Amino acid sequence: MLQTDVAVIGAGPVGLFSVFECGMLNLTCHVIDSLDCIGGQCSALYPEKPIYDIPGHPCVTGEQLISNLKQQIDPFQPVYHLGQQVLELTKTSDTRWILTTSRGVKISARSVIIAAGVGAFGPNRPPLKDIESYEGTCVFYAIHSKEKFKNKSIVIAGGGDSAVDWAIALEGIAKKISVVHRRAKFRAAPESESRLKSLAQAGRIDLVTPYQLHGLQGDGQNLRIVEVIDLSNQVKHIEADILLPFFGLSMNLGPIMQWGLSLDKNNIVVDPLTAETNIPGIYAIGDIATYENKLKLILSGFAESAQAAHSIKRYLYPHEIVHFEYSTTKGVPTSRA
Amino acid sequence: MLQTDVAVIGAGPVGLFSVFECGMLNLTCHVIDSLDCIGGQCSALYPEKPIYDIPGHPCVTGEQLISNLKQQIDPFQPVYHLGQQVLELTKTSDTRWILTTSRGVKISARSVIIAAGVGAFGPNRPPLKDIESYEGTCVFYAIHSKEKFKNKSIVIAGGGDSAVDWAIALEGIAKKISVVHRRAKFRAAPESESRLKSLAQAGRIDLVTPYQLHGLQGDGQNLRIVEVIDLSNQVKHIEADILLPFFGLSMNLGPIMQWGLSLDKNNIVVDPLTAETNIPGIYAIGDIATYENKLKLILSGFAESAQAAHSIKRYLYPHEIVHFEYSTTKGVPTSRA
Repeated sequence: MLQTDVAVIGAGPVGLFSVFECGMLNLTCHVIDSLDCIGGQCSALYPEKPIYDIPGHPCVTGEQLISNLKQQIDPFQPVYHLGQQVLELTKTSDTRWILTTSRGVKISARSVIIAAGVGAFGPNRPPLKDIESYEGTCVFYAIHSKEKFKNKSIVIAGGGDSAVDWAIALEGIAKKISVVHRRAKFRAAPESESRLKSLAQAGRIDLVTPYQLHGLQGDGQNLRIVEVIDLSNQVKHIEADILLPFFGLSMNLGPIMQWGLSLDKNNIVVDPLTAETNIPGIYAIGDIATYENKLKLILSGFAESAQAAHSIKRYLYPHEIVHFEYSTTKGVPTSRA
Repeated sequence: MLQTDVAVIGAGPVGLFSVFECGMLNLTCHVIDSLDCIGGQCSALYPEKPIYDIPGHPCVTGEQLISNLKQQIDPFQPVYHLGQQVLELTKTSDTRWILTTSRGVKISARSVIIAAGVGAFGPNRPPLKDIESYEGTCVFYAIHSKEKFKNKSIVIAGGGDSAVDWAIALEGIAKKISVVHRRAKFRAAPESESRLKSLAQAGRIDLVTPYQLHGLQGDGQNLRIVEVIDLSNQVKHIEADILLPFFGLSMNLGPIMQWGLSLDKNNIVVDPLTAETNIPGIYAIGDIATYENKLKLILSGFAESAQAAHSIKRYLYPHEIVHFEYSTTKGVPTSRA
């Protein structure tokens, strides 16, 4: 059985930074995430997309942000358990919880921070026969590197920001881009939509509307044709090497819903002054946590992680006066026994 | 009379970032500060000292942080009024305030964010005859660049973190360092104190305890000798080019105390969910704001600035539904009319 002061569920930016705030108060952390890499949505959904609202970073990509956060928390030696969900959370005393993951790992923690964002998430798959066999080679639900799409014929499906933004971003890199959407109108930022439409008018992107995905043709490894269908059931074939379906994500809080936490829709209700949930010893921060006037911003989650760490310190050491030290004075550990 | 949506009092990191959060909601800002540069304490007190707890910055100096924040808010074209204090704040309607500064500038604002930190601040001066004539040439209360002290004989006075940390930081740069403190025990982080003591044992720093500053000798421009005195009134002369007195800062909230704001000691009481003070239309964020479990961290101030900006938007436009856009989608303006 692994032992830790704090079990952090979720390795997105906010979960990661909570390791720093706990570490500054000498609390050790284990971090569990269903994805097989750290970074949550930043890594999985928009690694290359610029983020403008992280204070002190005029412009940073999701990937850079996560890399910086990793470097920032490394001195505190967090232990990661990736590619696994926390299935069970069992209370054995007021300051002892046992977490069991989908890989059978058991962690004994004195408190729990839930920083699970929108929950374990996965892409919404279009219901196309044999699509699984093309996934990871010709069908992608997220883009980690644009290079892979150089000189490819690409079908992008969907009408939201991801579809529109990636169509624009890959234009000039791909050989050909077709955007398939079941309406002529897109649900994207107005500037992006007009950009898309002018690229279409210039003949650099092919808008295939109103059409829906209908089927795939290929040898089961290499995609050759994407079939699309219109409202009057006319099928059209688009030659393509790559299909990028952007139909959003299905979020799944999964087992978290069963732990007796006070919920408001898919969010955990917390006291904003302590980040504490209705269950003493369990804290929630970041996008999964809610309270009046909550802003779902990464920077708000960062501040909540400081709030949670200090609450945990008070909870575990009620008689200890925390000597509040600034990082400029205290510094950070360069190594830990 | 200048016109703006928001008058921000204080150009420290939190005040600066509030310009970003207001800007993202299309609110214009004027920023006023008593110092003649932006950055507050980061620029004035510890420009070269590393900060470790800004999320996404494993290590950043105060100066770098402020430079990044400036770059981040430049697109929103804030108007700065530096080197002046806000002397008067007069309400003319629920959404109209007139601010008058010590330089006679008048700003008409629809709301006010107070991000004044510890207030207008200045160093505590030791009561030494003629010290003013050496200030800025031989006597410094803050260090902007270590280079200036190369090969100098330096007397550092004080027993807190600043005295100890700068003694350590300047060792090897200065020709000679003497640390004058009225007790043998220092009030500094334990690691720093033991570092100081081992440097003293190695003969690389001279600890002059228990002594107090007594007088200065020189020609009124160049310092020659710092006189120190012990408890039995024995005076000792230390040859020195430079005196660095680190006796902390005197903070002065000044006129802010007179505006009818709910105060708790030297802090303004706010609702943590809105950053609103007891006076509708006036908000307080960062170190000057207090509420239950308040953490005086820059990162908490950043989150409070987002909270304040959204509150102001609701206050000024109660009937407008704010379409919440992420910076990744909306981007930031590259220029503004």
